[in-house]
Amino acid sequence: MATTTYTVSGMTCGHCVGSVKQEVSKIAGVTDVTVELATGQVTVTGTQPVSDDDVRAAVEEAGYEVVSQ
Amino acid sequence: MATTTYTVSGMTCGHCVGSVKQEVSKIAGVTDVTVELATGQVTVTGTQPVSDDDVRAAVEEAGYEVVSQ
Repeated sequence: MATTTYTVSGMTCGHCVGSVKQEVSKIAGVTDVTVELATGQVTVTGTQPVSDDDVRAAVEEAGYEVVSQ
Repeated sequence: MATTTYTVSGMTCGHCVGSVKQEVSKIAGVTDVTVELATGQVTVTGTQPVSDDDVRAAVEEAGYEVVSQ
């Protein structure tokens, strides 16, 4: 298992959280995604380390932006 | 045609706007719903005057609140 935490900007409500979770969960090997709305922290757990580029692309697909990791 | 404008609190993003539109559009006789996120103004157009109680209930169903009309 590998866990990485990213900071995502622009999420303002539970719908935003849901969109990010949905997109990031689609990445191959991802087993869990948790999002804390107040801080923008998105924690991604996978069976192996997930590509940061894949996470960044998924977050952008949802309409938000990774600002740090 | 009858048009009424309500002010709704709590909408923070496009997903919130979509939820409110979807619920209010379900009210019988409603032909158009426009939402301005910045001001919270929800304008409801119907073939006949729509019940304020129905609009209030639909907005609450979406997870928000009518604060004035």
